[in-house]
Amino acid sequence: MNEKNKLPTMYWQDNRLCILDQRFLPLKVEYRSCKNCSQIIDSIKEMSVRGAPAIGITAAYGMAIAALNALEEGYNKDKLLTSLDEAASNLIMARPTAVNLFWAVQRMKNLIQKQKESSPQQIFESLLTEAKKIHDEDVNNNRMIGYYGSELVPEKASVLTHCNAGALATCGYGTALGVVRAAVKQGKDIHVFVDETRPLLQGSRITAFELLNEDISATLVTDSAAGSLLSGNKVDLILVGADRIAANGDVANKIGTYTLAVLADYHNVPFYVAAPVSTIDMTVESGESIIIEKRCSSEITYLDGHLTAPEGITAFNPAFDITPAKLITAIITERGVVCRPDREKLNKLF
Amino acid sequence: MNEKNKLPTMYWQDNRLCILDQRFLPLKVEYRSCKNCSQIIDSIKEMSVRGAPAIGITAAYGMAIAALNALEEGYNKDKLLTSLDEAASNLIMARPTAVNLFWAVQRMKNLIQKQKESSPQQIFESLLTEAKKIHDEDVNNNRMIGYYGSELVPEKASVLTHCNAGALATCGYGTALGVVRAAVKQGKDIHVFVDETRPLLQGSRITAFELLNEDISATLVTDSAAGSLLSGNKVDLILVGADRIAANGDVANKIGTYTLAVLADYHNVPFYVAAPVSTIDMTVESGESIIIEKRCSSEITYLDGHLTAPEGITAFNPAFDITPAKLITAIITERGVVCRPDREKLNKLF
Repeated sequence: MNEKNKLPTMYWQDNRLCILDQRFLPLKVEYRSCKNCSQIIDSIKEMSVRGAPAIGITAAYGMAIAALNALEEGYNKDKLLTSLDEAASNLIMARPTAVNLFWAVQRMKNLIQKQKESSPQQIFESLLTEAKKIHDEDVNNNRMIGYYGSELVPEKASVLTHCNAGALATCGYGTALGVVRAAVKQGKDIHVFVDETRPLLQGSRITAFELLNEDISATLVTDSAAGSLLSGNKVDLILVGADRIAANGDVANKIGTYTLAVLADYHNVPFYVAAPVSTIDMTVESGESIIIEKRCSSEITYLDGHLTAPEGITAFNPAFDITPAKLITAIITERGVVCRPDREKLNKLF
Repeated sequence: MNEKNKLPTMYWQDNRLCILDQRFLPLKVEYRSCKNCSQIIDSIKEMSVRGAPAIGITAAYGMAIAALNALEEGYNKDKLLTSLDEAASNLIMARPTAVNLFWAVQRMKNLIQKQKESSPQQIFESLLTEAKKIHDEDVNNNRMIGYYGSELVPEKASVLTHCNAGALATCGYGTALGVVRAAVKQGKDIHVFVDETRPLLQGSRITAFELLNEDISATLVTDSAAGSLLSGNKVDLILVGADRIAANGDVANKIGTYTLAVLADYHNVPFYVAAPVSTIDMTVESGESIIIEKRCSSEITYLDGHLTAPEGITAFNPAFDITPAKLITAIITERGVVCRPDREKLNKLF
């Protein structure tokens, strides 16, 4: 289902971006058709589309759609450029932690800079072409991540993963799950323990769904069970994605990742992070400077629209946490594996 | 609400045991009226009543009800004793991990042994009296646990707790939350972070409810957020209950407890276990020999009756994990605090 034509994370059709609404998975497969930039932003904010690489690509299409809307409004070039600036600002504010959003929007802005002589129509066309290019590059990057990462996976291995760093966090194949897919394809005997990943259950709803659909052996567990799996020697390696990697190798990823890294360290089990180079933010010194998105407390206090906690209780809901570089065995990118990451080693990727 | 007459965990009335059905908290306050032993067993299995001390007390009443049922059937003494034996066997099989169930049933069996000359009616009456005595002792034990434990709590402290070791896991006041209550009563400035505790959300549903009802400052978090709270220096101590403590000080408690103990160790934060002496099982050498209950996978794959994971995925749902004694700063009992627990120190409690 990670192949483009099976269940794509998103596709462009008739001047609209159709986004698989992942909030309803695995029970309902429904695409959200976006014809303007604010619909794109809502899809990112409401997490119809999630996963750092996927929201980057969505934002790139968002810029193309903003240009298209300006064309449809009959804006002149100045007004088009102003509206693209506005779209860029709004898109990067949709979610604060994943750097791929900034990265993709910046790439589109760089392209606009080069279009001084182009017509509005040409600007739209070049933005759309660039968005499609970012989309295609993502799948190729993931395959390279899979290729490099699979070398770290033993012939027989039990892997623990958290959240979803799969085909649906990207535009196919996946980062952490890309490594799993590549290892399975090489004939390795892989079992995956899937953390359900509260509060939004991306593990249960998306990772379990992806693995089941591909007949990759998987077991779902609560996030709390990881410690007991590790103490029972049931996990050979931990493999997660990333939302932003600081210059020193600190990693922002789904809340709970840091706990897994501490457990891995305590149990002497390797802890790998798989992410494209676009997730590395060399402008941020360390994890301390990464903004951690705080999401709505109702994600914790409500389940399926039903209150499960007492009315009036305060809930604290950070969407991500920071894992310091010292707890990371290696970062796996499309340009190779960086063992015991630090600024110098990460710099060499660029 | 932990006071006996506010919202009791259970009460005896008109020859029935009325058990607060904690599955429906905090949205619905409903008592399950049990008039025979199999209803009692169902209440334990289905977790209408939960928490090691509370299920011990429930089982004690279960033995009294079994005697009452035998009386109502007009059984002679031999038949009554046989049916009590049967009730005892069934009660201790209701849930395998919490030792208080065995402890309470054994106490009732010891009493039966002493009733060689008694009539069926006298046996019933003495069993009921004993159950009520265990019930009363529990509240007193918890107050003593609170008294001893509060000495370990600084004047201003942020406490992290997991699951519910409160008034409703016992018959009032609570073990871990008993310590919190005692510290608050002493005028200490206490804030409690409450792990929601998947899969059954005893933290959200019960601990948050207890603390909110008593105006104790509390914040609900996902289980995954503990690491990030600790790395942000937001937690001064971790305080949990126990379902069984082995002779060497290893502790079986709600799944996720072990992870918290590893995090506490990594962050140099004290990790305390509060439990009555009846939770200590000197017949079990170490945590390795404690049977860990595996519960139904649907507790993970369904929320409020709705499937949230793909149909066909395997889920692994251990209800407890083992925290080794070496990760435990102290065990707090009604007979005093045992620092860095081991067999010798625990033996002195008896």
